[in-house]
Amino acid sequence: MSSDVTRRGLLGAGAAAAGSAALLPDRAAAARTRRRSADVVVVGAGLAGLMAAREVAAAGRSVLVLEARDRVGGRTLNRELTTARGTFVEIGGQWVGPTQDVLLGLARTLGVETFKTYDRGDYLFHREGRTTRYSASTPLGAIPPDLGAVEAFAAIGQLDAMAATLPLDAPWTAPRAEEWDSQTFETWKRANTATAGARLLLDLAIEAVWAAQPRDVSLLHVLTYIRGAGNETTPGSLNRLISTAGGAQESRFVGGSQRVSLELARALGRRRILLSAPVRRIRQLRGGVEVHADRVGTVRARQVIVTAPPAVSAFIDYDPILPADRAQLLQRFPQGNAIKCMAVYDEPFWRADGLAGQVTSDGAPVRITFDNSPPDGSPGVLLGFIEGHLARVWSRRPAAERRAAVLESFRTYFGPRAASPREYVEMDWSAERWTGGCYVGFTPPGVLLDYGQAIRRPFGRIHWAGAETATIWNGYMDGALRSGRRAAAEALAG
Amino acid sequence: MSSDVTRRGLLGAGAAAAGSAALLPDRAAAARTRRRSADVVVVGAGLAGLMAAREVAAAGRSVLVLEARDRVGGRTLNRELTTARGTFVEIGGQWVGPTQDVLLGLARTLGVETFKTYDRGDYLFHREGRTTRYSASTPLGAIPPDLGAVEAFAAIGQLDAMAATLPLDAPWTAPRAEEWDSQTFETWKRANTATAGARLLLDLAIEAVWAAQPRDVSLLHVLTYIRGAGNETTPGSLNRLISTAGGAQESRFVGGSQRVSLELARALGRRRILLSAPVRRIRQLRGGVEVHADRVGTVRARQVIVTAPPAVSAFIDYDPILPADRAQLLQRFPQGNAIKCMAVYDEPFWRADGLAGQVTSDGAPVRITFDNSPPDGSPGVLLGFIEGHLARVWSRRPAAERRAAVLESFRTYFGPRAASPREYVEMDWSAERWTGGCYVGFTPPGVLLDYGQAIRRPFGRIHWAGAETATIWNGYMDGALRSGRRAAAEALAG
Repeated sequence: MSSDVTRRGLLGAGAAAAGSAALLPDRAAAARTRRRSADVVVVGAGLAGLMAAREVAAAGRSVLVLEARDRVGGRTLNRELTTARGTFVEIGGQWVGPTQDVLLGLARTLGVETFKTYDRGDYLFHREGRTTRYSASTPLGAIPPDLGAVEAFAAIGQLDAMAATLPLDAPWTAPRAEEWDSQTFETWKRANTATAGARLLLDLAIEAVWAAQPRDVSLLHVLTYIRGAGNETTPGSLNRLISTAGGAQESRFVGGSQRVSLELARALGRRRILLSAPVRRIRQLRGGVEVHADRVGTVRARQVIVTAPPAVSAFIDYDPILPADRAQLLQRFPQGNAIKCMAVYDEPFWRADGLAGQVTSDGAPVRITFDNSPPDGSPGVLLGFIEGHLARVWSRRPAAERRAAVLESFRTYFGPRAASPREYVEMDWSAERWTGGCYVGFTPPGVLLDYGQAIRRPFGRIHWAGAETATIWNGYMDGALRSGRRAAAEALAG
Repeated sequence: MSSDVTRRGLLGAGAAAAGSAALLPDRAAAARTRRRSADVVVVGAGLAGLMAAREVAAAGRSVLVLEARDRVGGRTLNRELTTARGTFVEIGGQWVGPTQDVLLGLARTLGVETFKTYDRGDYLFHREGRTTRYSASTPLGAIPPDLGAVEAFAAIGQLDAMAATLPLDAPWTAPRAEEWDSQTFETWKRANTATAGARLLLDLAIEAVWAAQPRDVSLLHVLTYIRGAGNETTPGSLNRLISTAGGAQESRFVGGSQRVSLELARALGRRRILLSAPVRRIRQLRGGVEVHADRVGTVRARQVIVTAPPAVSAFIDYDPILPADRAQLLQRFPQGNAIKCMAVYDEPFWRADGLAGQVTSDGAPVRITFDNSPPDGSPGVLLGFIEGHLARVWSRRPAAERRAAVLESFRTYFGPRAASPREYVEMDWSAERWTGGCYVGFTPPGVLLDYGQAIRRPFGRIHWAGAETATIWNGYMDGALRSGRRAAAEALAG
C-alpha cells in the first residue's frame, strides 16, 4: 500500500517539481498564490508532525502540514533495493520495542505489522584485532566475553539507579542535577570504571544510542534519556536502550518503518500535506499566526506546531523573535552523527554459520552491526553503523573509499563473503539539511540545567514537538509520536 | 565626528525605514530592484566585516557590506546618556589592552583616542555577605583578600602552562587535546582546587571572560582562548584576560568603542554599506556567488565573507548546502549570556571613598563591577555585569525587577548613594537576534576536537570571519579585526 502511494507520487519524490534551485523565484511568486488557512499548521511531516495533524483532524479542526522535503517521514525513510524490487530497507530509524506503546498501538491501527529482529545464534565481539563468538541467550542477555563487561554492567546498574531519581518532566530539578549536568559522560566514565574493557563497552553504548562520543554529552542528558526509556509504569533502563531481545531493537516493521509515516499521511489525505514547502517565517499577529513557506506562500492559522529538530527549527525567522532562552536553547542542542550502511547479499550467509549478525567492536569505521534482512531472509542484508567521531571523519571522505572501508569491516567480522555484496546502500544523516544529523539532538553539559524549562514551553501560539521534546522515549519514533500528541493537545486547548 | 554621522542618519538608526515588520513584502519586491554586484560581498558590518571591507577596498577591488541591523558596529554599540547629552557609554564591547595591536593601531589611524580605565584606589571583594577592601596595586596586581586566592593563582599558572602547549592555529592537534576537550572546565576546577575560595575566583574568571558557567565550556576551549590572549611574540595568559592594568580591561576609547566601527564605516563610505539588509540566502554558482538580502535583493559577487557569529550564520540558507562538518559546527558554537547594566550618578562618588569601583563578588545578580565614567569623570557611571547562569535567569524577569536587583547589588557594594542613580541603562545581548548572545561563542566539550578544522576553512567562495574565528584575541574586538583581515586576504587571493 505504502509503496503504492510512493509510486503514484502523491507523497513521494515525484510530488514536487520545485526543487531547492527554484526557491527564490517561488518566494516572489508566493505572494500571488491563493491564501490558505487552517486551525492548526504543523511544520514538518515526520512522525511528530503527522501524529499532531492526526489528532487535530480527529478533533474536527482543520490542519495543514508543511514539509520542507519532497516526502513525508522525517527520519524514517524506506529505500527500495535495486537488486530486489519490492523489498525495502530503512535508511533511517527502524526498530520498535517493548514499552514503545504509542508506536506499537498506532502501527496496529494502521495495519503495519511487526516482526522480530533476527537475533538467533551467536553474537561477535571484536577487540584488538581478535573476534570472539559468544552466546546472546544467557538468562541475563548478551554479555560480551570481556572481563570489562562485569564493570560495564555494574556501571549500567549505577546509571539506571541515578536515572530513576529524575522527575520525568523536569530532570533539571533533581537533587543532583547540577553535579550531573556539570560533567561529560566521559568524565563520569573515567571516574567510575577502571578497565579498558568496561570503558570500551560504555563508549559503544553511547555511540550506539546517541551517535556521539561520551565527551560530547552531558551526564544528566544521558540519565534523562535512560529515565525515559520505559513507559508510564516501567522504569527506564540503559539495557533497554541497547538491547535487541526485550529492548529498543527487538522488532521491525514489515515493509519498512516509513510505512507508519506513509499510512499516517494517507489517512490524513493529500490535501492536508504540502510537500517541498520549507517554512521560512512564522509571524504571530493579534488573533493568529502567519506561516510563510516556499512554494506555498502564506498560510494563516490559529496555532502552529513546529516539529523540526531544535537545530533545524533555528533556521526559521520568528516574528516576534523567540524569547532569549528558546533562541539560545536552539544554539545548544546539536544533532548526532550517524551513517547507516547496508550490504546486500543473495542470502544471510552468517546465519548458516550460527551467527546472529550482531557485532560490537573496537574497530573502524563500523563498530556495531545487525542482520537487517527482510522477514523471509531474502536477500541477506548486513547493517553497519558509523557513529559519532568516526561518522564525522568518514563523512568527509569520498563515497567509494567509505564503501570499501565498510565492506572491509564486514569482511573482518563475517569473513570473505561479506566483501562482495550485490548491492551497497548508505545514508549520511549529518549531511541532511532538514534533519542536521542523527539519531537525535543531545545536550552538552549545562544546557538542561539552564535551558531545560524552555524545551516544551509554548511561545504564544507556537508549540514545540519532535523526538527531542519527548519525555518518554526521547529521540525515538515512539517519543516523536508522543510529542506530536502532546503538542496537538496544547494547540487544541489554545 | 561619529556622533555627527549617527545624527545625520547615514549609518545610524534612522537610515532605514524598512523595519523587520516590512520584510516580507520586501522579499517579493526584491526581484524588482536593480541588480547590484561587487568583487566581494561582506555579510555583517561589525568590526570583522568593516575591516574585511576596508582591506578589499584598499586592494582596489569593489566591496559591498550587507548588514542585518539598521546600524554598524555589531557587538560594539554606543548609547548616548539621556541625562548627559553628548556623553556616550558602551552597551557592548568596550575595552582595549596591551597586545591588542591591530585594534590599537587601527584606532590610532582613525583618530579614535584611548584613555585608561579608572583604576585608582581599592578594589572590593564580597563574599558570604561581607565586603572587604583591598589594594589592587601590589607588585603582583590585584589579589583578592581570600585564602583561596593562593590556590586560584596557582591554578591560573597551571592553565597558562597548559595553554602554552597548544598550536595557535590548531589547538585540537595538541598532545593532550583529547583529554582536555573531554571535560568541562568545572570538572578540571573540581579536580585541581580544594578551597571554596579558589573555586569562586575561578568561577568569576570564567563568568567574566565567557559570560558562561564553568560547566558550559570545554577545558580545551578555555585553554585555546588563553593561548590567544597575547600576540605573535607575547604568550597568552588568563591574567591578561581578567586584568585591568596590563590586561584586556586596561583602556577605553574616547567617545565610546563604537567610534572605531563608525569611523571605519565613514572611511568606506555610505555607498559600500547597506543597512537593514539581513542576508537570507547565499547561492554559489559557476563563476560567482549570489547573495540575497531583504530590502536589497540579489547581489552578485566573486567572493563572500560571512562575519556573523556561528550560531547566527546558521540562519542563512546556503545553496549548495554547507558541508556536514560546517553545518554541524554551527549547531555546536553557542553564544554566552551577558546583560550589561549601568547606573549614572552626578559624580563617581566611590572615588572620594578611595575606591576604584571594581568589585568581585559571590552575590547576585551583579558579581563584577567597573567604574565606567567618561574621561572627565562626569557623570559618574557604575557598570555591573550579569553573566552566565544569572543572565539566563534574569533575562526572563521583568525589566523593573531586574533594575531594582542591580541597584540593590550596587548599594550592597558601594553604599546607599548607589541606590538612587539619575539614569539606568541596560542591554541584554541574549535577546539580540543578530548576535544571539554575548560576549562570544564558546565551544562545549568535544567540539574543537571533531569540528575545529572547519572553523576557518572556506567553503568554495565563502570565507568565514568574526571574533569567533580569530586565533589571536578570539572573542575580542582585536580578534574580530584580525579575522576580517585574514578573510579579506583569502577572498582577494580567491
